Amino acid sequence: MHINLPDVQADVTAAFERYEVALVTNDVAVLDELFWNSPHTLRYGATENLYGYDEIQAFRAGRPSAGLARTLGRTVITTYGTDFATANTEFHRAGNERVGRQSQTWLRTPEGWRVVSAHVSLMS
Amino acid sequence: MHINLPDVQADVTAAFERYEVALVTNDVAVLDELFWNSPHTLRYGATENLYGYDEIQAFRAGRPSAGLARTLGRTVITTYGTDFATANTEFHRAGNERVGRQSQTWLRTPEGWRVVSAHVSLMS
Repeated sequence: MHINLPDVQADVTAAFERYEVALVTNDVAVLDELFWNSPHTLRYGATENLYGYDEIQAFRAGRPSAGLARTLGRTVITTYGTDFATANTEFHRAGNERVGRQSQTWLRTPEGWRVVSAHVSLMS
Repeated sequence: MHINLPDVQADVTAAFERYEVALVTNDVAVLDELFWNSPHTLRYGATENLYGYDEIQAFRAGRPSAGLARTLGRTVITTYGTDFATANTEFHRAGNERVGRQSQTWLRTPEGWRVVSAHVSLMS
């Protein structure tokens, strides 16, 4: 198992950065695109647990678009072979001193890299 | 990519359940065994962000062993091919009404299935 093959890590980093831009600009089409379209996809958000692509998509569609700006802290992207990766990052929002954490598991599908599982929380 | 091959899912479920027993009984040796021994391994806990196997191991060694009992809620274990998996579960602790969430990404290594990334939080 090759860890952090440079080409693979570059591709996942590009997908991760594309997701981040889409998140802070509330580009719902790209957010939807980058999550795996499957009933197995899961996202634990700061205030909600979403099971399956349809629940995640409905949450995106109904989310207020204000207050999404954030600054990323320490970020670790690790790839395992050519088809699997994890991306973890700390983040901060203005006016909130709590440390946010975002974890994503990425899978390379025929359509491109997709998030199959995500977990976002504020540290207690 | 075969999702949820029965043999693979059974193996990951067994590893997940072994981890759960070790967690609530504070069996540090098994907890250490089941995390990937790598500087890339990462664990966001409810109150701490740990980078690398050494930080995770030090945290386990210093953790109080009281109050670890918990009840699992909805659990979703998904396998991707033969070497990767995600395990997500909700949990509750007596005396705490907040919903806990535990996310793990598992990798099949020559030594067996190991957690390469984990995130535990209480829903806000």
